[in-house]
Amino acid sequence: MYDQRVAAVLAQMEERGLEQLLISDPPSIFYLTGRWILPNERLLALYLNKNGGHKLFVNKLFTVDGDIGIEKVWFSDTDPGCQIIAGYTDHSKPLGIDKKMAARFLLELMELGAGSAYRNGSECVDAARRVKDEEEKRKMIVASQLNDQAMERFRGLIREGVSELEVSDGMKAIYAELGTQGPSFGPLVSFGANAAIGHHKPDHTVLKPGDCVLFDVGCKKDDYCSDMTRTFFYKSVSDKGREVYETVLRANLAAQAAMKPGMKFCEVDKIARDIITEAGYGPYFTHRLGHCIGIEVHDAGDVSATNQDIVKEGMIFSCEPGIYLPGELGVRIEDLMLMTPDGAVSLNHVSKELEVIA
Amino acid sequence: MYDQRVAAVLAQMEERGLEQLLISDPPSIFYLTGRWILPNERLLALYLNKNGGHKLFVNKLFTVDGDIGIEKVWFSDTDPGCQIIAGYTDHSKPLGIDKKMAARFLLELMELGAGSAYRNGSECVDAARRVKDEEEKRKMIVASQLNDQAMERFRGLIREGVSELEVSDGMKAIYAELGTQGPSFGPLVSFGANAAIGHHKPDHTVLKPGDCVLFDVGCKKDDYCSDMTRTFFYKSVSDKGREVYETVLRANLAAQAAMKPGMKFCEVDKIARDIITEAGYGPYFTHRLGHCIGIEVHDAGDVSATNQDIVKEGMIFSCEPGIYLPGELGVRIEDLMLMTPDGAVSLNHVSKELEVIA
Repeated sequence: MYDQRVAAVLAQMEERGLEQLLISDPPSIFYLTGRWILPNERLLALYLNKNGGHKLFVNKLFTVDGDIGIEKVWFSDTDPGCQIIAGYTDHSKPLGIDKKMAARFLLELMELGAGSAYRNGSECVDAARRVKDEEEKRKMIVASQLNDQAMERFRGLIREGVSELEVSDGMKAIYAELGTQGPSFGPLVSFGANAAIGHHKPDHTVLKPGDCVLFDVGCKKDDYCSDMTRTFFYKSVSDKGREVYETVLRANLAAQAAMKPGMKFCEVDKIARDIITEAGYGPYFTHRLGHCIGIEVHDAGDVSATNQDIVKEGMIFSCEPGIYLPGELGVRIEDLMLMTPDGAVSLNHVSKELEVIA
Repeated sequence: MYDQRVAAVLAQMEERGLEQLLISDPPSIFYLTGRWILPNERLLALYLNKNGGHKLFVNKLFTVDGDIGIEKVWFSDTDPGCQIIAGYTDHSKPLGIDKKMAARFLLELMELGAGSAYRNGSECVDAARRVKDEEEKRKMIVASQLNDQAMERFRGLIREGVSELEVSDGMKAIYAELGTQGPSFGPLVSFGANAAIGHHKPDHTVLKPGDCVLFDVGCKKDDYCSDMTRTFFYKSVSDKGREVYETVLRANLAAQAAMKPGMKFCEVDKIARDIITEAGYGPYFTHRLGHCIGIEVHDAGDVSATNQDIVKEGMIFSCEPGIYLPGELGVRIEDLMLMTPDGAVSLNHVSKELEVIA
């Protein structure tokens, strides 16, 4: 157990008037225990109580080696897992539940009266996970350094006639060569008009002169994620392409220069969005400015027009404005930003100058 | 919508006194609609009511082309999804809930009073999915035919000094060449003592003479899964190895010869288990005899000592007895079995005779 992380979750619980919490989400259990347990459809739960006596309920099929500083309660496929958990919970107090717990477990815990009421308590862990400790910051920096190295090499994959899928396969090989744990999400490679399609996956589209080339990519290292986007042009860039690119870059830079602890997430979003809107491209910036990131590439918490939460020191989130002109082109420029007392620091250092690859 | 499949689910609901059901599990939604929608953390639900007026609640981010014979209710990330659903459910009646629905949605639906009570209604869909219709049987047969072809080629990957990982990579390439959708689960390749380890994943272990070679593999074709295990010996087989193999084979054949609609699943399990127990290896047959299979490699329903359910015509499940001697060897022989009025038919036709590969 990471005692300080547990303490951070307990503090969040206290703030929300919650005395006990059941966490079932493997990344959150990894965050608190340092162990990955992937139970698929089986029951797994970490129980926290403000009075201590935390417990990890885990099926004997899985391996959790050594002393992890928390009592393990083992059960088998034929044991009544939920009943075992309900034997430890305080039935007279509301029970916080992980947002991802499967309904069959929650319904059974309710039938057993495991708590006096049931509340979505995920924010207690999510809020703690959003603020990175020193070990996490180090790992996030290393993962982004590797992603920077990877991006420099990815540019070498750009050549006439190559397909998006070939580039994407080449990226995976480079991530393996660099000693990462592989991509943190399927590399996004979009040529030309494909870059304007929101969820476009690499396909057999072939690169041709004049195309924009959008790479949205990240890797995992030591269980932490990186995520960066760069957009290039191949052989030539149109005046429209240049204007769009420079607008997105201004939005990216302005938001990064202004963001700092104490602001609201929606204020950060607004800085970038205003620049794009003033340039006349507001309707073509179709998504939030960014998302939190850490053990998962999309940690809970987003940099959006509706999020009133306060940005805090130690948070890491993406800054990724974009403009997408359907049937024509798409440009996105994304860096990961670490919040420090002195403002925001980018974890990515790959050039963002408009580049036409010959 | 597959009307007959919907009717089968509604019949199950009636049998269980449930008038309305919310299904969130993508494979079950695919089973009923023929469309794969993978919402990740977002809300997705198919609502069935015994009085009709079924609805599919789906985020605008996803594509569900054309008329699928059910009203689609679209919402966006900023719409209150659960509130929209609760606007259609009957608040005066119990609401069946999919076993996998995420707690955050269930808790919100409860807060909104979407039903008068909440019950795990998964068995209504699971029971329907267990009995395959003609189209499903055809697809299951094709997937297993491909798996047979693949297994014949996998034997060619066995050579001295090859590692489990190299074989596993070779298998993936062969599945791709055969025009499948890829493996239905990560191919299991175990040499020698590794074959005795329950959840062993292919690693850098190198094949050596005298090793047993266990291949537990399957592919997907047209969204249906195959799954088969064969165990070979490399260069030589010990007397113990031969005895174990012949025992497992007898259990496999005896269960297949005896199983038929009308029996209980636990009776099927017992046939194989008794043979292994009588041979003195009972404690080394450490798992259930089999599992149902279809759209998912592990459909709900297992062939185990505790399952009192009745085997029905149209069901397909695995028959996979095994004996695992820790530190020494493991043997498993698995086929998929289709239940017909005349008894059980194996979907796999690869030889099960003991084979020592030279």
